[in-house]
Amino acid sequence: MPDSISPPQFDFKSYLADQRNLVNRALTGIIETDFTDSRLSSAMHYSLMASGKRLRPVLCLAAAETVGKINDNVMVTACAIEMIHTYSLIHDDLPGMDNDELRRGKPTCHIQFDEATAILAGDALLTLAFEILSRQSTTPEMAVVWLQVIHTISKASGHRGMIKGQMKDIQAETSFVSLDELKQIHLLKTGALIKASVITGALLAGGTADSIEQLKIYAENIGLAFQVVDDILNVEGDASKMGKATGTDASRNKSTYPGLLGVNQSKQFAAELVNNALHALEIFGNKANPLSALARYIIKRER
Amino acid sequence: MPDSISPPQFDFKSYLADQRNLVNRALTGIIETDFTDSRLSSAMHYSLMASGKRLRPVLCLAAAETVGKINDNVMVTACAIEMIHTYSLIHDDLPGMDNDELRRGKPTCHIQFDEATAILAGDALLTLAFEILSRQSTTPEMAVVWLQVIHTISKASGHRGMIKGQMKDIQAETSFVSLDELKQIHLLKTGALIKASVITGALLAGGTADSIEQLKIYAENIGLAFQVVDDILNVEGDASKMGKATGTDASRNKSTYPGLLGVNQSKQFAAELVNNALHALEIFGNKANPLSALARYIIKRER
Repeated sequence: MPDSISPPQFDFKSYLADQRNLVNRALTGIIETDFTDSRLSSAMHYSLMASGKRLRPVLCLAAAETVGKINDNVMVTACAIEMIHTYSLIHDDLPGMDNDELRRGKPTCHIQFDEATAILAGDALLTLAFEILSRQSTTPEMAVVWLQVIHTISKASGHRGMIKGQMKDIQAETSFVSLDELKQIHLLKTGALIKASVITGALLAGGTADSIEQLKIYAENIGLAFQVVDDILNVEGDASKMGKATGTDASRNKSTYPGLLGVNQSKQFAAELVNNALHALEIFGNKANPLSALARYIIKRER
Repeated sequence: MPDSISPPQFDFKSYLADQRNLVNRALTGIIETDFTDSRLSSAMHYSLMASGKRLRPVLCLAAAETVGKINDNVMVTACAIEMIHTYSLIHDDLPGMDNDELRRGKPTCHIQFDEATAILAGDALLTLAFEILSRQSTTPEMAVVWLQVIHTISKASGHRGMIKGQMKDIQAETSFVSLDELKQIHLLKTGALIKASVITGALLAGGTADSIEQLKIYAENIGLAFQVVDDILNVEGDASKMGKATGTDASRNKSTYPGLLGVNQSKQFAAELVNNALHALEIFGNKANPLSALARYIIKRER
């Protein structure tokens, strides 16, 4: 690893654990308020509370801290984004999509429940995200910000964002994909929602247009880095640590960074992306410590 | 049919054709602005522009006319609701759900395209609905109304509304369902989004709290009437007019109104519900002509 991405100056391990706890507590609160004792709610609960990394909500909180403070609005938005991420995993795993049986170390939703329940649990988590984003009692001025938040998230997760990436990812299994196309797929499939997490966190903490521009550059770079590392872990990783099967990309003939660039060059590419991200944070000084530590974490993670 | 539900006083046939045209033109505008030349957009387009009845968007417009005037905001909302209705049909038809091959007289989305594309096209239509609802440039006061609209629609279509109804409907295939439970399923599966159509149309046209309360009673009654008639048509209907297979409920052992009440008593029940709906409209006088004609149409329709 180059020197410029040396370890962070503060206790990142505790920070990450604390933020994950905050997110999990907020999600539990929503489950207690909103979920019923139905099979549908059980499936939503099962997938939402499987041991996820909570990367997107933690990024949302960290972006808020970079430009201001975490508040209840930021937390609700972080939870909504995690719901959307979880729904996309449930649908990605379906037999008609990737047909995966293991996710976050547990049976996928359609294996644990059944296919119809998994389809509907995904639909319901997506819909609930917009329900919780729109139910905040608020001033007219804040209502304008909430509409911006809803618009940023829906656009990022829609057919020109995350879903476009999912679609292209499937199509890429049966056709040759160039490095540029692969980058495009990942900017959409993983990058779009990661970017929305950072933007909305900053928006709700009162970030200026200029600071949000810098955070967008940060987010685009770490979004792509995250996916490059994911591809590397699919080759090199340990299934028990990953919580999902490894070696699956090669067996599916999927285009990946290691496949196109080799593992070493892929690692170098990921390090470059993280450096770009760190560079974009310079204007924020120490306030960006959590975001810079998160960028470093992304290329060092084991799952 | 009882006298009280005699034909309407104005040319309903032209009215319905005109309103459908307005909705289809608005949907086409959104397709031209938002859709790309991808397989995903093609699938979204295919299902959205299949010859639907446009009942929900037309109800949204008619509710607006009852309390005020149709405006651009009402039209956007009518389109968003039709997108959500279409997504629910695409997912309902999937092999893991009802496994239907015919919808709106054409092959279902997963037959015409493939299963993965159909799953994602459904997801994308749901997401796009919230994207178009949140992108209106607006005053802070209107932003508050938009949040109410988004909240009403997301709650109605979520895991305690439409999706709960879809889930209970599936579970009802393998267990005995009482008349009360059947009513509950349909109030959720069909009724919740119909009610949201009427409420949001009225909200965006400046309806008072009192008028919205009356419209809720109207909507609950026609929502249920619609489903009772749907069940009757599944027994008596002509597949070529329905645009989907008939006789399927019996072959799936599904609990239906005709199954529980008999066809004649089901027809009487539908007529009673429509009378309740018409009664709730009395305070609006002639302004409610479109809504009352729509209520009458629901029990006379052939598909």
